[in-house]
Amino acid sequence: MRGAVVAVGTELLLGDVVNSNAAWLGNRLREAGVEVVTSTAVADDVERLAATVRLCLADADVVVLCGGLGPTVDDLTRDAVALACDAPLRRDEGLVAHLRSLFPGDLPADVFRQADVPEGAEALPNPAGSAPGLWLDKGGKVVVALPGPPRELQPTSEPVWPRLAARSGRALTTRQVLVVGLGESVVAERLAGLVVPDGVDLSYLASTGLVRVRFTSADTALLPPLVEQVEAALGDHVYGHDAETLDGVVHDLLGARDETVAVAESLTGGLLAAALSTRAGSSSTFRGGVVVYATDLKHTLAGVPSPLLHAEGAVAASTAAALAAGTRDRLGADWALATTGVAGPSEQEGKPVGTVFVAVAGPDGGRVRELSLRGDRARIREATVVAALDLLRRALLGKPDRPS
Amino acid sequence: MRGAVVAVGTELLLGDVVNSNAAWLGNRLREAGVEVVTSTAVADDVERLAATVRLCLADADVVVLCGGLGPTVDDLTRDAVALACDAPLRRDEGLVAHLRSLFPGDLPADVFRQADVPEGAEALPNPAGSAPGLWLDKGGKVVVALPGPPRELQPTSEPVWPRLAARSGRALTTRQVLVVGLGESVVAERLAGLVVPDGVDLSYLASTGLVRVRFTSADTALLPPLVEQVEAALGDHVYGHDAETLDGVVHDLLGARDETVAVAESLTGGLLAAALSTRAGSSSTFRGGVVVYATDLKHTLAGVPSPLLHAEGAVAASTAAALAAGTRDRLGADWALATTGVAGPSEQEGKPVGTVFVAVAGPDGGRVRELSLRGDRARIREATVVAALDLLRRALLGKPDRPS
Repeated sequence: MRGAVVAVGTELLLGDVVNSNAAWLGNRLREAGVEVVTSTAVADDVERLAATVRLCLADADVVVLCGGLGPTVDDLTRDAVALACDAPLRRDEGLVAHLRSLFPGDLPADVFRQADVPEGAEALPNPAGSAPGLWLDKGGKVVVALPGPPRELQPTSEPVWPRLAARSGRALTTRQVLVVGLGESVVAERLAGLVVPDGVDLSYLASTGLVRVRFTSADTALLPPLVEQVEAALGDHVYGHDAETLDGVVHDLLGARDETVAVAESLTGGLLAAALSTRAGSSSTFRGGVVVYATDLKHTLAGVPSPLLHAEGAVAASTAAALAAGTRDRLGADWALATTGVAGPSEQEGKPVGTVFVAVAGPDGGRVRELSLRGDRARIREATVVAALDLLRRALLGKPDRPS
Repeated sequence: MRGAVVAVGTELLLGDVVNSNAAWLGNRLREAGVEVVTSTAVADDVERLAATVRLCLADADVVVLCGGLGPTVDDLTRDAVALACDAPLRRDEGLVAHLRSLFPGDLPADVFRQADVPEGAEALPNPAGSAPGLWLDKGGKVVVALPGPPRELQPTSEPVWPRLAARSGRALTTRQVLVVGLGESVVAERLAGLVVPDGVDLSYLASTGLVRVRFTSADTALLPPLVEQVEAALGDHVYGHDAETLDGVVHDLLGARDETVAVAESLTGGLLAAALSTRAGSSSTFRGGVVVYATDLKHTLAGVPSPLLHAEGAVAASTAAALAAGTRDRLGADWALATTGVAGPSEQEGKPVGTVFVAVAGPDGGRVRELSLRGDRARIREATVVAALDLLRRALLGKPDRPS
């Protein structure tokens, strides 16, 4: 089964909005067993939009449109679908009543354009907004239209995926093994001996400091042995699976032991604390931290001895270790993480950009890891956060740091 | 002049990568006076890619491709341009020598695919990678191919824009007025009386807590009076222009007075400090902060009196004020900002999700602002950071808080 994605809106062509819906829809279509062959952005122009839908229907079995379903005269997706599919718009009285219940009082007439449905189409309820989606069977093919705002598109689309999976007869299952501390090429090299059976797709998806090893297949039974082989090959570098996050894994490990963490940050300037406070409920395992951007605060807030700071400087292994130990003590946490280093763009204390130390202090002592990071200031800060979380993860697991 | 954007890569159709290049290219084409009429993502399939380029050339004067210029057999953009434009590939010896200088030693033969250039095309130097871009004149039309990674695409594309602007003869100038503390619809309402002359485009671009009022025109002289009228209508809500950022404006105001700021964060958990340490050189005006996520740290790290915490709780105006005052004192800064509130998803101390207090303390005393924010946890945290930075901005300017 072949699919086409059509994102509607002049703002996409002007570059005022990044077309993130296309990626989200591409992922879901793939999982439903639909191969996306084309993805296009089209301006708010009914003729051009209808022509695009016709062109897509010639090439694909499923066309998914997003955007252009709102109440204004710029919202032309309904009209274009009606035109392309020879399915004139009819006003649905059930939808009119629903709109009246959403907006009590006098309503501008345009609002009711959202109650217009192409003949033969089904309205898909929008739990987060006023514009319903549409599902239209058209000569064995399917046209789906979804609202543009992601927080409306995603819930409105939920009924679509099982139906498409049933039609394609080959819904895919995805399993991901999440890896930290190895580059994409090293991961690929270590997995070079992996025999991937026919019918399984393997891909590597890299972001700063992290790699996802992803298997996709219509045959669920093929995946667990592959996941196990990756785990065996990558060992301690595997931090989780599927939708897990590195900060979430750390919170879970801490929670299981009823322990807490605090942080002291220099070059990351708050990003590590922000990561550890992202998840709802993180206050049960994250106590807080100090952002010791100015050098004197490393002494006054985190208790790094002044003579050490004078002798070693702010960017040093011993300073990182002292930051972690002092913070653990002063903030009353079971564990503490510290970051210090040179984010750039200029060198500092004679150390080149990318020189970074992360340290952990825990009930049984501390560890320091030295990093030589590449990239710009933002990337160095992000990579430092990942390395610090991984350092704590390894300490909590009782694993040695940085195994080969 | 009409333009088409073609992003190349199966990963875009699968949704593994968000197509952010399309937005960036759309913006630059528009500024060069090229109207983007279509934007498409295409798989790594040479026939389909060549067909797409032909289709775009039938409709547009300029086709800009991105991605698919690397050394691997999956990189097919060069081949597709050659096919679509009847311009066979020729190996460029100058590019071969350049590749040898980039990668000394024995090279796999595939690397030199990056030295292949369609007949009549010009190679565009890539200052950040090995794959050059291409510029090909084709019967009065232009085909441009650029490398896919944004940090390579952007510098490689620089020679393209002035050339296209010269061809279109109507390069556009953009001026932006940056607004904080008013919603998009309120901004539009306040500017309802604005007379926008023919030949000027007005748009509103909103993100969490911020709105950009954007004017674009081929006639530069039309813009300054419009910018002035917006400033007059929105007053203190205007925090900057064009590429300025709210944190950058705060740093500049502090720097001009040779003063510093420190922060105390509860619900924002480090995000405010992270914002204030984003810019290179921020250490001259940002001293650091405390992340007082656990309630007892509000006392021990930021000096909030325990009786006050017991009487008022963690989420209260007086607690926010005490956090700011204590932090200013303990961290030795001229100014301090504090945030406390309920990020959700559950209420806290009987206060609903979205109840937030931000406070500033300075040489002449303090101010507190109460907010009732909507949205999910991430959005509430982001909006709090924006409100806190704005509170400091207003205090530094000697402006009253939240003018009507």
